[in-house]
Amino acid sequence: MTSPESDGRTGVWLIGARGSVATTAITGAAALRDRLIPPTGCVTESPELMDPAMPGFDRLVFAGHDITDTPLPKRAEQLEAGGVLPRGLRELVHTDLTAADNRIRSGIGTADERHDQLEAAERLTQQLCSFRELYALSRVVVINVAATEAHPPSRREHADLEELENGLRHPDPAEGGPLPPSSLYAYAALRAGCPYADFTPSVGARLPALDQLAAEQRVPYAGSDGKTGETLVKSALLPMFSSRALHVRSWSGTNLLGGGDGRNLADPNNVTSKTTSKQRAIGESLGHPVDGDVHIDYVPALGEWKTAWDHISFEGFLGNGMSMQFTWQGCDSALAAPLVLDLARLLARAHERGHSGPLPQLGFFFKDPVASEEHRLVAQFEALRSFVERLKEG
Amino acid sequence: MTSPESDGRTGVWLIGARGSVATTAITGAAALRDRLIPPTGCVTESPELMDPAMPGFDRLVFAGHDITDTPLPKRAEQLEAGGVLPRGLRELVHTDLTAADNRIRSGIGTADERHDQLEAAERLTQQLCSFRELYALSRVVVINVAATEAHPPSRREHADLEELENGLRHPDPAEGGPLPPSSLYAYAALRAGCPYADFTPSVGARLPALDQLAAEQRVPYAGSDGKTGETLVKSALLPMFSSRALHVRSWSGTNLLGGGDGRNLADPNNVTSKTTSKQRAIGESLGHPVDGDVHIDYVPALGEWKTAWDHISFEGFLGNGMSMQFTWQGCDSALAAPLVLDLARLLARAHERGHSGPLPQLGFFFKDPVASEEHRLVAQFEALRSFVERLKEG
Amino acid sequence: MTSPESDGRTGVWLIGARGSVATTAITGAAALRDRLIPPTGCVTESPELMDPAMPGFDRLVFAGHDITDTPLPKRAEQLEAGGVLPRGLRELVHTDLTAADNRIRSGIGTADERHDQLEAAERLTQQLCSFRELYALSRVVVINVAATEAHPPSRREHADLEELENGLRHPDPAEGGPLPPSSLYAYAALRAGCPYADFTPSVGARLPALDQLAAEQRVPYAGSDGKTGETLVKSALLPMFSSRALHVRSWSGTNLLGGGDGRNLADPNNVTSKTTSKQRAIGESLGHPVDGDVHIDYVPALGEWKTAWDHISFEGFLGNGMSMQFTWQGCDSALAAPLVLDLARLLARAHERGHSGPLPQLGFFFKDPVASEEHRLVAQFEALRSFVERLKEG
Amino acid sequence: MTSPESDGRTGVWLIGARGSVATTAITGAAALRDRLIPPTGCVTESPELMDPAMPGFDRLVFAGHDITDTPLPKRAEQLEAGGVLPRGLRELVHTDLTAADNRIRSGIGTADERHDQLEAAERLTQQLCSFRELYALSRVVVINVAATEAHPPSRREHADLEELENGLRHPDPAEGGPLPPSSLYAYAALRAGCPYADFTPSVGARLPALDQLAAEQRVPYAGSDGKTGETLVKSALLPMFSSRALHVRSWSGTNLLGGGDGRNLADPNNVTSKTTSKQRAIGESLGHPVDGDVHIDYVPALGEWKTAWDHISFEGFLGNGMSMQFTWQGCDSALAAPLVLDLARLLARAHERGHSGPLPQLGFFFKDPVASEEHRLVAQFEALRSFVERLKEG
Repeated sequence: MTSPESDGRTGVWLIGARGSVATTAITGAAALRDRLIPPTGCVTESPELMDPAMPGFDRLVFAGHDITDTPLPKRAEQLEAGGVLPRGLRELVHTDLTAADNRIRSGIGTADERHDQLEAAERLTQQLCSFRELYALSRVVVINVAATEAHPPSRREHADLEELENGLRHPDPAEGGPLPPSSLYAYAALRAGCPYADFTPSVGARLPALDQLAAEQRVPYAGSDGKTGETLVKSALLPMFSSRALHVRSWSGTNLLGGGDGRNLADPNNVTSKTTSKQRAIGESLGHPVDGDVHIDYVPALGEWKTAWDHISFEGFLGNGMSMQFTWQGCDSALAAPLVLDLARLLARAHERGHSGPLPQLGFFFKDPVASEEHRLVAQFEALRSFVERLKEG
Repeated sequence: MTSPESDGRTGVWLIGARGSVATTAITGAAALRDRLIPPTGCVTESPELMDPAMPGFDRLVFAGHDITDTPLPKRAEQLEAGGVLPRGLRELVHTDLTAADNRIRSGIGTADERHDQLEAAERLTQQLCSFRELYALSRVVVINVAATEAHPPSRREHADLEELENGLRHPDPAEGGPLPPSSLYAYAALRAGCPYADFTPSVGARLPALDQLAAEQRVPYAGSDGKTGETLVKSALLPMFSSRALHVRSWSGTNLLGGGDGRNLADPNNVTSKTTSKQRAIGESLGHPVDGDVHIDYVPALGEWKTAWDHISFEGFLGNGMSMQFTWQGCDSALAAPLVLDLARLLARAHERGHSGPLPQLGFFFKDPVASEEHRLVAQFEALRSFVERLKEG
Repeated sequence: MTSPESDGRTGVWLIGARGSVATTAITGAAALRDRLIPPTGCVTESPELMDPAMPGFDRLVFAGHDITDTPLPKRAEQLEAGGVLPRGLRELVHTDLTAADNRIRSGIGTADERHDQLEAAERLTQQLCSFRELYALSRVVVINVAATEAHPPSRREHADLEELENGLRHPDPAEGGPLPPSSLYAYAALRAGCPYADFTPSVGARLPALDQLAAEQRVPYAGSDGKTGETLVKSALLPMFSSRALHVRSWSGTNLLGGGDGRNLADPNNVTSKTTSKQRAIGESLGHPVDGDVHIDYVPALGEWKTAWDHISFEGFLGNGMSMQFTWQGCDSALAAPLVLDLARLLARAHERGHSGPLPQLGFFFKDPVASEEHRLVAQFEALRSFVERLKEG
Repeated sequence: MTSPESDGRTGVWLIGARGSVATTAITGAAALRDRLIPPTGCVTESPELMDPAMPGFDRLVFAGHDITDTPLPKRAEQLEAGGVLPRGLRELVHTDLTAADNRIRSGIGTADERHDQLEAAERLTQQLCSFRELYALSRVVVINVAATEAHPPSRREHADLEELENGLRHPDPAEGGPLPPSSLYAYAALRAGCPYADFTPSVGARLPALDQLAAEQRVPYAGSDGKTGETLVKSALLPMFSSRALHVRSWSGTNLLGGGDGRNLADPNNVTSKTTSKQRAIGESLGHPVDGDVHIDYVPALGEWKTAWDHISFEGFLGNGMSMQFTWQGCDSALAAPLVLDLARLLARAHERGHSGPLPQLGFFFKDPVASEEHRLVAQFEALRSFVERLKEG
């Protein structure tokens, strides 16, 4: 039942490869391979979603892009101090961290490169292809776990692949290259024939032109914005209110974050892109507008940890006003990292089985699922389970 | 598609007919019939579960048993003062309250009657039959919304219908009649050919002997313990943790209740029956034991309102300890009443369509669903939806 | 011990006299006078702060300014529907509401009037004097309970009374009159010899020029920003952390408000003035900067009610990171109204006893106390208690 | 100003010297001496309470009793793993831990010894005297930080010292020795002329007979039950409600504890002693009874950490029902340990200055302060500050 091809190894190319999520994922994958930790948080290891033909943790080779120089072993040390990595683990997987760090290349950084996007894209594509060849990988899955970028202005070139490639060759002198960085990475990945996922709320592959490219290249893609905390709880609670015919009147949320993601989201431009995808689930799930704002606050004192408070007011029988509140206290990197591994394995397997274009079946992982309006967590889980069943079939 | 029979009216016989839940349900049904309120909280009015062949709110006739004398209009006044009923509504449905109150008969109260259970059961059965005949009702659905009773000792007679009827005829002189009050009501209801539901955690119909009786009489039954607050949220959140492979380590809960239910549950015997059904969902859903206690405190100052706090500690990737808390502030009567109406309509329709015995498809409504180990709310909702679809078919 | 003068009646002139706070205060004062309610929430009725020489609830005459036309009895009806006023009370004090409503005059509204501030001030002063004479009042206390106004730009005229009066007479043609509305009301009140309090965060009397005027007129004033919820709790908790040598690292807050105050604060300009006075207490109390933001969200679904959530992270012995959260669910008008009555009585009595200028001893009532950096609630209470003791002394 | 005597060293003898609190206190004292950590959480190091004549951290010699054998360095390792001690610290103070561990003697353990209480007391007294002499200590302060014991039955011998000593010499053959273990330790300490404090809710020195002994021996004592979490917050919040004339209607609390204290308190006998002292503050502070229960649950998954949730319902102006909730998440050992150091220093200094008998001025530290009904935290702090001022005066 397993194709011979799946004996080969799979590359996992992370955009933002020296960030907290990437460092935790790379450390965790090595620890899982050596059975140093149980697969808690890894859904592709649960009995309902396990597919023996998916690449094992011993068959993943990590690499990626980043714009910072702090090497992975140093980042792991910081994450250990912050309580994300259990003490002593990083020493046990030190070789893996060093090896992965040596495979990290410079991301799109300088203003120059941002301007000459065609050259940049060609460089990125080339790096992906070299990685695949050098390590004789069956395929390379590219996942964006970099910092959230501001929502870019809409551009004519985004609507059509031909126009886009034209724009890359002949950038508008006033406006510069047509793509935001996340989409430039996505473009390069798809060009290199790599399955791709956006774990951040950045635009990435979600442009009509890139959708055409994915179809043309016959590669699957998934996204956006990993669902790791407040929105995860939302997607579990919203069906409760709707299935019980309780009328949600307001849903307000405050997210307190330390760490790099918090600092980045403190930039109001970026917050908008994040809070929009957070609130999208509510409106779509309930089918009516709901009062309430979402805040994301940078609180350095919280370190790698995050606290979210949500307040929901709802109306029951005879107009009775009731309310619910919840607080979620979690470590974002530890919540995100196993999902990144899950996505790498699922996209690799989907690619092997010939799937291409957007994969709404992976909506379970995302706040803002591509090609899907289903936000109910249990329904998303069922869709994922069916998808894995089909991957397993003959 | 609608059978002519369904043009008849349906009786709704409530055990505890002068309690808060019953009063709210009777008031609400009249208000719904007259379109004075929207059907918020009534799931059989939602597009996904609506079945035009179910009895409409204008086709329900309320009656029941109770052991208190405070008439329904007086109870409605108290509930209005407590903020459960919107101001002015009770005057608009005063005729309905008075009429229903006139149909309420004395429940099983005196020690004598508790002892001579056969005579009591015959009286109850007779009352149900008279009600059905007098009002020319298609059928009468009996629902127990009385105060929670202490969990009774196990008795030999519970295991078999023949033994039970023998025991009713010849009660053990030392131990008295074989049935706790809730089961005596259930026995009488089934004997009268009435569909039956336990909305409380009391034993009611859940004895092998009564299961035999339901099968013999060809009537359906459902239960137990209406899921209206903390456990409702639990059943929405548990699948989130398990589908994400997050390891729940502890789940602790404290419920603060005023009102009659709080006072009743303050009796430690009764609490046990309630807290047991509350914790059952966690173990069965997760498949492993979990630390933590559940408390139910009587806090008169809270009146008809209830506040529950739950604390969940869980482990994520790499052993990271995280936590979630929620607070639920609701009005129990307003949460329970529409579900009582839903159950009456669903059981009537199921009976009409020939269903008998336990109905696990109604597990959506209960903390401790009969004949089911499914506690995931969304899965329960899907099972209910399918059931309603089948009821609608030819 | 009581001076004969205190047998006279005291006027209470409310800026924003038809708002929720004013309506609740006027209704409550009449109910207290007729002993229809206990004095819960009224600190001048507590054994420790009671001074028999303060004007009794039967000696207060209410009047004021407003820019809306909805009469007080109508506003009381709305507040009854919103659950602020107990049912039936407004009918019992209907005469008082009507009488007070007849004494309400138009506030500063039109653009014209805002421009010709001298004329406006003279009109306001004249109204206060007429009120005092007409009802033969011992004195009139003016309290600003109007909507929060945006923080105005600083003006040269604010620094000195002579310059201010010059600026009123000869307004700058480009910038208009020198005073924001709240300060114009304060100016008029002080000119009329009336004790004055700012219950809102607006500038009001807190300008050096007006401080000079208060001294010159020999009238006391107090403010700013009534402490009724989140900040009240803060001022009780901050001394806990500091007296225990626990190091507060972050304090984050989110306030969800319905009602008029919420809508008004949704204007970002106004929010700034409010959130600034809310955070001031933290820095001043702890003596070091603290991470964290404060949000004020308008959530219409909450009606007259308010929910605040605060998250505090702090460091204990050996650098241990700990946290505390609290939720406050209250009715702002019901929290504010008795304090308005307290302030009226205290200012009247202080004026009678010859106090003038800022009264830091009333800091207990305010988020941003005038002439004081003491924010510890218990210390503020002690200061108030001593002040009342001194008022009582011969 | 400093007496020559205070140049000597002070012994700190801990009952329960190998428990979490003791281990954290001994580790922390060494770290403070070597300036490895700031004195966060130590109130005797705050500017307002500092007295240079109190023994410095370099002048404390630790010893004690325990009934377990796990040595202090091993306990420190466990506390490091549990996140209580910062990583690496225990190695830096290893010598101190070993030295203190060598000074720990067996506590009262065997049934035999519990029976022959006179002999046991003499052994304990002897050990305290030897310790004082061997290390040439100015004095030895004894502090009970052992596990909470069940509340003992009242005995005639508790009321009078002469009767007590008689009872120790001639124990009742049926009932055994007259003292619970905590009081036997207290008796021995006072006999040895040592200042004594109960940091637990056990009876300890709080018997009339022992009060006589303290007076006779001219030694001060303090207690009971260190205020480190929920009750600390209560004592900060209660004055808020009472000073604002808000009527508290219910106060409910749930405490979730892992660690040894949680396990110990899971014994219902012990819980009673703890929950009683927790609720005492509320009644005494408010002067009227309040609804609500307090629960203490053992939740092993929480390790050394504790989460408390409190719900307060209160009534404001016009009978408005409002509520407040708080959650406290802390590490009990880290909260308790610096207070143990504070108490040692304060009791040593008070003894030096000739104070004897109960010290209500130390009520700031305790849930159930001896000889005091003051529970308001700020008032307790003021009393402590005055006491320290007096200690400093020549």
